[in-house]
Parts: sequence; structure tokens; C-alpha cells
Amino acid sequence: MSALRSYVRGQWHTPPDEGAPLHDAVTGEEVARVSSAGIDMAAALDYGRRIGGPPVRELTFHERALLLKQLALHLQEHREELYELSYHSGATRYDAKFDVDGGIGVLFSYGSKGRRELPNDTVYVEGPVEPLGKGGTFVGQHILTPRRGVAVQINAFNFPVWGPLEKLAPAFLAGVPTLVKPASPTAYLTAKLVELIIDSGLLPEGSLQLVCGSAGDLLDHLTEQDLVSFTGSASTAQRLRTHPGIVRNAVRFNAEADSLNLSVLGPDATPGTDEFDLFVKQLVTEMTVKTGQKCTAIRRAFVPAERVDDVAQAAVDRLGKVAVGNPANPDVRMGALASLEQREEVRRSLKALMDAGSLVFGDPERPDIVDADPERGAFISPILLRAQDPDRPEPHQVEAFGPVSTLLPYTSTDQVIDAAARGAGSLVGSVVTADADFARDVVLGVAPWHGRLLVLDAENAKESTGHGSPLPVLTHGGPGRAGGGEELGGIRGVLHHMQRTAVQATPKVLGSVTNQWVNGAPHGDTETHPFRKSLAELNVGDTVVAGPRAVTREDIDHFAEFTGDHFYAHTDADAAAANPFFDGVVAHGYLVVSLAAGLFVDPEPGPVLANYGLENLRFLTPVYPGDELTVTLTAKQITPRVDADYGEVRWNADVTNADDEVVARYDVLTLVAKEWTP
Amino acid sequence: MSALRSYVRGQWHTPPDEGAPLHDAVTGEEVARVSSAGIDMAAALDYGRRIGGPPVRELTFHERALLLKQLALHLQEHREELYELSYHSGATRYDAKFDVDGGIGVLFSYGSKGRRELPNDTVYVEGPVEPLGKGGTFVGQHILTPRRGVAVQINAFNFPVWGPLEKLAPAFLAGVPTLVKPASPTAYLTAKLVELIIDSGLLPEGSLQLVCGSAGDLLDHLTEQDLVSFTGSASTAQRLRTHPGIVRNAVRFNAEADSLNLSVLGPDATPGTDEFDLFVKQLVTEMTVKTGQKCTAIRRAFVPAERVDDVAQAAVDRLGKVAVGNPANPDVRMGALASLEQREEVRRSLKALMDAGSLVFGDPERPDIVDADPERGAFISPILLRAQDPDRPEPHQVEAFGPVSTLLPYTSTDQVIDAAARGAGSLVGSVVTADADFARDVVLGVAPWHGRLLVLDAENAKESTGHGSPLPVLTHGGPGRAGGGEELGGIRGVLHHMQRTAVQATPKVLGSVTNQWVNGAPHGDTETHPFRKSLAELNVGDTVVAGPRAVTREDIDHFAEFTGDHFYAHTDADAAAANPFFDGVVAHGYLVVSLAAGLFVDPEPGPVLANYGLENLRFLTPVYPGDELTVTLTAKQITPRVDADYGEVRWNADVTNADDEVVARYDVLTLVAKEWTP
Repeated sequence: MSALRSYVRGQWHTPPDEGAPLHDAVTGEEVARVSSAGIDMAAALDYGRRIGGPPVRELTFHERALLLKQLALHLQEHREELYELSYHSGATRYDAKFDVDGGIGVLFSYGSKGRRELPNDTVYVEGPVEPLGKGGTFVGQHILTPRRGVAVQINAFNFPVWGPLEKLAPAFLAGVPTLVKPASPTAYLTAKLVELIIDSGLLPEGSLQLVCGSAGDLLDHLTEQDLVSFTGSASTAQRLRTHPGIVRNAVRFNAEADSLNLSVLGPDATPGTDEFDLFVKQLVTEMTVKTGQKCTAIRRAFVPAERVDDVAQAAVDRLGKVAVGNPANPDVRMGALASLEQREEVRRSLKALMDAGSLVFGDPERPDIVDADPERGAFISPILLRAQDPDRPEPHQVEAFGPVSTLLPYTSTDQVIDAAARGAGSLVGSVVTADADFARDVVLGVAPWHGRLLVLDAENAKESTGHGSPLPVLTHGGPGRAGGGEELGGIRGVLHHMQRTAVQATPKVLGSVTNQWVNGAPHGDTETHPFRKSLAELNVGDTVVAGPRAVTREDIDHFAEFTGDHFYAHTDADAAAANPFFDGVVAHGYLVVSLAAGLFVDPEPGPVLANYGLENLRFLTPVYPGDELTVTLTAKQITPRVDADYGEVRWNADVTNADDEVVARYDVLTLVAKEWTP
Repeated sequence: MSALRSYVRGQWHTPPDEGAPLHDAVTGEEVARVSSAGIDMAAALDYGRRIGGPPVRELTFHERALLLKQLALHLQEHREELYELSYHSGATRYDAKFDVDGGIGVLFSYGSKGRRELPNDTVYVEGPVEPLGKGGTFVGQHILTPRRGVAVQINAFNFPVWGPLEKLAPAFLAGVPTLVKPASPTAYLTAKLVELIIDSGLLPEGSLQLVCGSAGDLLDHLTEQDLVSFTGSASTAQRLRTHPGIVRNAVRFNAEADSLNLSVLGPDATPGTDEFDLFVKQLVTEMTVKTGQKCTAIRRAFVPAERVDDVAQAAVDRLGKVAVGNPANPDVRMGALASLEQREEVRRSLKALMDAGSLVFGDPERPDIVDADPERGAFISPILLRAQDPDRPEPHQVEAFGPVSTLLPYTSTDQVIDAAARGAGSLVGSVVTADADFARDVVLGVAPWHGRLLVLDAENAKESTGHGSPLPVLTHGGPGRAGGGEELGGIRGVLHHMQRTAVQATPKVLGSVTNQWVNGAPHGDTETHPFRKSLAELNVGDTVVAGPRAVTREDIDHFAEFTGDHFYAHTDADAAAANPFFDGVVAHGYLVVSLAAGLFVDPEPGPVLANYGLENLRFLTPVYPGDELTVTLTAKQITPRVDADYGEVRWNADVTNADDEVVARYDVLTLVAKEWTP
């Protein structure tokens, strides 16, 4: 490695100047140089918007999701290259996997969720149709469309692979191109990642750009359609949040900042219990993985006052076995901090923390180092502190961004909740307890200050992904000090990159916007039975009207007998009439939907393969003996799969009586073949 | 009226100083004085958090919703008082109704939606349970809990009643106390509103405070749990967004700013069509209601180039009939601007706009005024401009916040979309057309720049609420220049005041947090049939296990015959086996759920009143002849109604076969009595 290249406007850009040196965290040797000189930031953003945006937006959510899955598979093939390079950052192989495999896991998750939870379409429809007038001619619904800008990532040094990927996946799935600005100390890893992605040829050109080095005047050129997602320190978050380029256009700005995350040991978890061991083990893991350089690491470990000695001793025992040193050495469990500057920063913060606590384990100045030069590498030992007075401000305000935690005594649940609040907003907290009531009280008490909360116990320990791991399906972010933002959270993270718009129109026009049939809109083809049509032939709005079929008292009696459902409302006229909702014996709801299917089904083999479910079924009007039922089944939404020869069709079923009252309304879910020849 | 009182810390506060005078918009006479001198802002916020928060949070969503409904009824009784006072602001009776009735409508809407769409509980559970491990011991779900701070409103002068109420309703429903800071020019109306609310005694003490006059150092005392919702100018929004008190703690900040909203006449809407008339009528309405002082008013009216003359003429005809003057005079259709300062502001903006366009109607300096002194009142005539060159920047950037709009010619759909983007973000746009394809193209083209879009045509004209009316069930806000925020939108606006937290735990612990039974959690009482229990007796987790019942080929044949559902997969073994999902004849899904009901139902009259629906039904494994079905029905969520003697119980139904595979899973929705004596 020498000068890191950026990738802008479809080309690799080699800086024209010398750039600034980046150093190996272990050896102190120069590993690369970094500079963004010569990059026209305005042109890069413009390229993303003009060239990068359109081809991504042309793909459906499912097509984008499939590309993410393919990208995940491609990176999985090449992950050894990323692991190897990670040693330079002080990361052990385990640390590198956390970063690299974690990032690939996000791609897989969005690749899967995108196809399961989003339509195979380019517009996302959110929530139900809202009636806006009694006559049914005026309705509203929310749609989300991709922002027409660039998702600018400003990443932290500690997750050079996971960071870009966890932001890229939801942005790409939303249809928004990305520009990555990695933190310089580990930019060589992000540069390698981007090289692997570009070389794969999987993503449309322009959907990913990379700026290594300073961001220069990048933010000055943002428009109201761009987004900025920042991960890093709370102070940088504040600086960016007030940047004129962001404020001027109310640019959507998301911040993820490291925070004073807590972990609480339950009063039930005495020494000898599984939970006691789990607490101590997790604490030590969180202190040492990535050398404690995780925004989600445990900084405040709350322990019942009478257990602090026990926990301290157990933690010391474990920490004593953590070999610190050259991360490439397989005996080493904790590598170096990312840079010597970072070590200075940690030592500075430690000074403040030690004003409020005493040292339980470690020596900030003289660690034992395995297989490396303790002077040239950014090594530090794990440091466990113990606060005598949990009311001192430092443990709740000062973060040492390294392998540093503080034990704090507590004497009541309320005290824990008050202390949590003093952190002023955290990404994550955990409670280690087998007592469900204690867990509930703490979770509900501290939730307003947290983006994620883990309750760990013996039952879920094996499957638990741990305190420090954000998951793609769950929200990652937190209020206040943690940045006030939200990332991931499954589809939530996708929608974050889109604009929500309420559309008000007639049912017909709304349906033409959403590509769904809306109740009250005209029906399409009613001549050919829609079950005779393959996905290629079927259109939204195609309809079959069938019936009437009379429901007799004999039908109801027979159904009760046949199914065993003798519920009094279907069998006992007096008891039914005494019920506040009925005038006498009513037909079973299950009978109504069964008869409706009997009416709307076309029985012959055809493109309809299966009914895989029902949704939103409501029985709206009682059906009495003698009522005649008519069913209207209308194709509401058509979702061909990108990787199968069939797809989903959602039908609206309206069952009405002779007075045209809707007695039942529901969505029928079917699988239908893309093509069909009898 | 003399000095306006504030309401802080449970008391009416009369300012100790003279304060600043507020003037009648019509007569120029002093109507009130305003000052926030003597108010301890830090103490007011602290009071809201400590005294106001807890009693609101103790109420369930349904209880809060019911209070909102009662408050709406109370204000409805007193609305004449607000109408009367509105004349001082230059508002006609129609304008006052728009403000007052609109605000009461928001209360009614949240009063109703809160009971229909939120649980009768204090925690909101969002989205499905996410499996986080294959063994089922580790799951995740998102909950939302009320922020423990104060919702600070900083309102605009133009909607002194609607503004506070549209922000109060979702905040209160969320469980968050409010502090209102009205814009001074019309603060007397907000003060009257708050007085009516406080006098009603309906809301718990501390849930509403009022600061009339300057905000002083209010923002300096915000914490990470507080929220600020601002409505007003884009420049003030920028100033607040960068306020250290907001930035320091990443305070959730929402801005709603006036914007250059557009309306587009479709090419199909030639003179003589309904849509042509609707476009012109709506344009004139939006110009004149509230004397054009609406953030949602139409500023840019796009008309096919060849129709500009026609539209101009038709608009001039209508505008000529708009009497301007004393709003209390029933002949007057448009009153005064809110203040003389506001008129100066409008005239300044007009100068810039007139550089790019010519005057079609109106005279900014010399309006004809009915029944009032044109010198002392803040009167202005409606002003319609016509831009010769739609590429000039002014019409897309300069807003005259009064009865001012500009006609702009266009020649293609793409040109409209490009022009929309030049507004850099709007609250609302409208398209007036009978052409669904044109509507769809414009809506999807301009959606990324809009928070709301209306498609108006002859079919929905009678029911349409119009371009300028935000609705409580739809999002109100817009990107970029419009502030980048979102309010209302039904329950979305409630969740905005809450903290989203991902909870990871065992199913049992997760269920204890969410107060719902989670699949995989232990079952509760399985001795007493849960259909024998009233809401008072039933607990989440109570379960009945019933079966097995064998499904025979005869059952399937019989069901096909009885219901008429002869779909080939249930009747023709060869055709079924040719289907990619089945090995031979399968039981109807409707048969499976009907038999399941036959198993789980307890037939005798009891507290269970009705099955009103099913949700999330999925057929997961085919049921073949000979399969034996067992059903496990578990109380999942219990929702007693606040205003009836019954409530909803949601049950989880798992139907399994002899191999313990789940063949169907769904939610059964029932109504159950609160009490029951046999």
C-alpha cells in the first residue's frame, strides 16, 4: 500500500500529493498515505445524483435485495483479504470477523428482508388507506419514494468494513447512491472493501463512491435530497449537525455517537448462578473485543452493592488471562488501539475517571505485551475501575474509548434507573438476571434513554448475540449523547433514506400511484376468471363476482356438527339474542369465508398454485339464516418473485349480503405461476 | 384584554412589567400586551418533567385518548369565544373556523385513533417479534415509551388555535407534557385557548403550560428527553436548529416551515371542464383564506403554456369578487394580514417576485377596503402574478406570506417535475386533472420534494378537503425548505414523542415487558378453559390445548361439496401432486381453521361475545388426509375498552400436526365481557 485511491465519478483517483501517513497500530510503521486532494466534491455529489441515482431507482426493491445478497456472497469469498489487512489496525482475527462478517451479515439480512417485506416494485406503500370522506371518493395513503440525492457516510475508524456496509445496504435497498468517507486511521480497509465491491461489477455504476482523506468542502454542496449518516464522537456529531451545508437545506442528518452504556447485574444473580458468570464474562468480552473501541461497549457496570467485591474478583480473574499484544499471534486475545493518538486520548479520559474510582485491574502505562514492541504499538491493558460513590459525575459523563469499564454499586431498582438517565442517552444497555420482574422494571425504566436493551439469562445465553452487537433487524442508535439517531432496524433503515408523502386522491388515482387496487376504485376485467390468468396476464383490479349463495339454518347446524364448533351464538337462538351483538343465531365466521371461497374459486388446474394465508379479516355484519352472500374478489397487489417462477397475489375479498352490506372483508394471499399453459 | 397571562408551574402568571403592545390587525388599536418577564424557564421545564409527566404516563393510551375527545367537546362548546377574538387577528369567521374547528378536529381524530390503533396500555409495541436465534430462546421486538421530557411548541402567528392543538394532541397521547410558546402577534388567542383548557380541568396538572412573550433562555435548559416542535419561517427554523441548547443534547427537533407549494393544472383540463374550474377556484381560495397566510398556500400555479391566458382571466374574474376589509363584516371574504409589519414583509417579497413576473390582478399599495380604515389595518389586495420565464429563480425561491401567487407556464411533465425540485422542498402540492396517468407521473415525479400531494378532480371535488388543509391522519411536513420535519400522520405523530427501543430477551421476558404473550414463552393457566374467563379473570398466556382431530379424505371431499370449493388441490390427487407445493390432495385451509375452531371453542354462553376477525393467518405446512390436528390457543393481548363493558382479546392459534409441525398460525380476534356471572 502507498497512497490510498478514492473512487469518484466512475474512476479510481490517485491523490496528486504526498498525503498524510497512516501507521500500523502494532508496529508503528507507515502502512499507507491518505489524501483527498484533487477531488471535486461538488462534482462527485452531482455524479452520484445524476449518474448513480437513476439506474438504482429503476430496479425494484427485490432486484436491489438480490444484488445485496450477491454482493454478500462475493465479499464472503474475499474476506480473508480483509482479515489480513485488519491486523494493521490492531485487530485480532476475532475482531476482524466481528467487523467483516458483521458487515456481510448486514448485506445478507437486507438481501433477505428486502424480498420478504418490501414489494417487488419501486414505491413503498405505508399503512392503510385512510378514508377522508364519507362518500368514498376521497382517500389518502402514505407512499415512500427514494430521495433523489446521495447518502453521504462519514464513518468511524473502529468498524472500517461493518460501518460502510451497514449504511450502504439500507441506502441501496432504498434506491439511493452512496458516497463513503472513511475515518483516515483505518481507511485502507474501507478502500479495500470498496475495491472488492467495484471489482465485483454487481452494483450499478455511480451507486458507490469513496473519498479517502479529508471531506474538504463536501458538505457545502449538499442539497435537500442528500442525507448524511455520521458515526463517531459526540463532539464531531455536534460540529456536523450545525454545519451550514446541512442546516441550510435541512439535510437529513443521522448521528451515532459512542455513549456511556450500562450493564446491570440483577439482585438474584449471586455468585454461583449462571447469570453471575454471564455478567462477568460479558463485561470482560465487551472490554476486550476490538480493544474496547466499540460505541456499544459497556462503560458502566452496575452491581448490587454487596456483590461488588465478588464481581471485581471474578472479573480480575478473567482479565488476568487476557493476553495483550500482536493481534496476528494466535495466543493474543486483545490487540492494539487503532493509533497512538487514540491511546493518548484514552489515557486522558482515564485520568478523569480515576478521580472518581480506584483501579481494580490493569495499568494504563505499562501493559504486558506479547510479541510486539510496547513502545511503537498502541497497546494498553484492560482497565477495570471501581467507583466508590456512584453519584460522582465522571463515570456517567467521561468515556475512555478503549478497554475501560467502571464498576458501580447500586442498592435499588430506582437508583439504577436514575443512574441510567445520568448517561443522557445511550446506544445500548443490558440487564443480566433470571428475574423477569426485575428485568421488566429496569427495561421499562431505562428505555427512554436507550436505543437497544438486552436481557441476558441462562436460557438465552447460548443464542444471545451479546450486549455489543447491533443487529440489522433491530434499531441501532440512541437519544441524546448517543446522537439522537437511528440506523438499521430492518426496513426502518430503508425508509430513512426515502421521502414519505401523503397522497390524497380518488381510489382510482391513488391505486394508479401505488400500483395496488384500492377499495372503491373501478374493477378491471370481470369477464375472464382471474384464476385463469398467470402473473403475466393478470392485472391489478381484475375481478370475479360470484354468488349469491343463501345461508340456511341447516347450513349453520351442519357446520357446527361437522366442525365441532357449537359456540352458543351459532346454536342457541336465545343465548345468541342475549349477546349484545346479535339478534339470534348467526353463521360462523369460518362458514362465511368457507362459502365465499366456494364461490370465488375456479376449480380447474391453472396458474393459481396455493392459498398461503389470509390477512386483515374482519366480520363486519352478522350473517343470519336466510342471508344471501355474494363475494367480490379483486386482484389487489401482484408481487412476482425475482428468483422463482411464481409470485404472490394479494386479493381483496368483499363478502356482501342482499342489502349490499359488507359482512366480511379480508385479503386472500395466493401463489400464482408467472406463466401457464393448460 | 391587557397583559396576557402565562400559565406555568400550575399558576397563572401576570407579567410584572409593561410588556410589548399587540395591535388589532384591522383597527391598529392595542389589543393586549405581552411579556414573559419573571418566568423561570428552567423551573417551568423541570415542573413539566417532574409534575406534569408522571400522571400523564400513568394513564393508558385509551384513557388519554378519551380525555382528548372530552377536551374537543369542551372546546366545541366555547368556540364562539375564540371566533370572536379571531377578528382582532384580521381573520374572517370562515378563517377562524379553519383555525378553531380545525384544531378541535385534530383532538377528535386523535381521540378516536388513539382508541382504535393504540393498545389500552402504556407501552407501544411496534412490528413483529424478530427471531434472533434458531433455537427460539432469543428474540427481539421494538417498543416505544414516552420521552421523559417536555414537548416544547414554538408556534407561528397564523394558526393560534390549530397550531397548539395539532401539537398537543399527539404529545399528550404519547404521554408527554407540553409547553406552548405562541407567536406574539396572536398570542391572545392561544392564551384564551389555554385558559379554556385549564378551566376544563380535564388534563392532569402540569401536562400543559403556556409562556406568552419571549422564549428567553428556555432552550438553554433542554435535556435529551425534551422535544422542540417549531412552525414558522425557514430562517427561524435554521436559527433554532443550531441553538446550543438543542445541539448539545441532540434534542429531537421538528420544523415546519412555509414553502413554495405548487399546484399543477393537467393538460386535459381545458376551459369548460370541471377540473379547469376546480383549479381556478382552489387557487383563489388558497390565495384568500387566512389572507394567504398559510404555510400550505399555493405559491406556484403551473399551467400548460397555452392555457395561461385562460386561467389568468378566470382567476381575475373570481378575484374581482373577493371583498377585502373588516373581517367582522359578513360581506367581506378576505380580512387583514396579521400585522402592519407582516404587510411590509409581503410588500418587500413582492418587489422581488415582480422582477420576474407581471401583475395579473391586484395592487399591493392601494386595495379597496370594505368597512375599515385602509391605513390603520394591515390590508392588502390579493395579488396574482404571471411569470413570463419559468426559469427565473424568484418564483421558486421568494415567498410572499400573504395573498400572493404566481402563474407559471409549462410545456411538459418533465418540466413540472424539474420546477417542483427548484422549490427545494414543499409541504404540499396539488395536481388538478382527470387524467390518472398524468396524475401518477406528476405525483411520483415530485413526491421526493413533498410531504403531501393532492390529486383533485371532478369525482372527489365535493369530498376533497383541499390543497391547503393538513389532516390529522396524514403527515404534515416536507423536506428541505419546508423544514425537513413531520407532524401528525395519525399514530406516527404520537410515536414521534416516544423513544423507540429494541428489546432482546427470551420470549418470556420480552412478553413481560410488552404485556403480550410471545410465541415460545411458557403458557399460563391451562386448567380452566380461557373462554370461561371474563377480562377481569383472564391473563395473558392463558391457554387451551385441544385435539387431536384426524382429517380424513372424506372430510375434505365433504367440505368441498358443502362449500363448493372444488379447487383441484383438494379434489384431484394427480393435479395436486403436479403442483410444486403438494404431494397429493390437501385439506382446504378454511377446513383447517374451521376444525381448529371446533376444537378450541367452549360452546356454552360465557364472557366471550364474538369472534370479530382473524389476522396474520399463514398456512405453513400442507395437511394431508390422515393428519391429526391439535390446536393451542393462547391469550396474547388483552385490551379492555375504556368506554364499554367489554374489550378485545387477541389469541395466538397454533395448529400442529402429529409431527408437531405448525400447519397454521394466526391471531383470533374476539370480544370478551369485562365481567361475567353465569
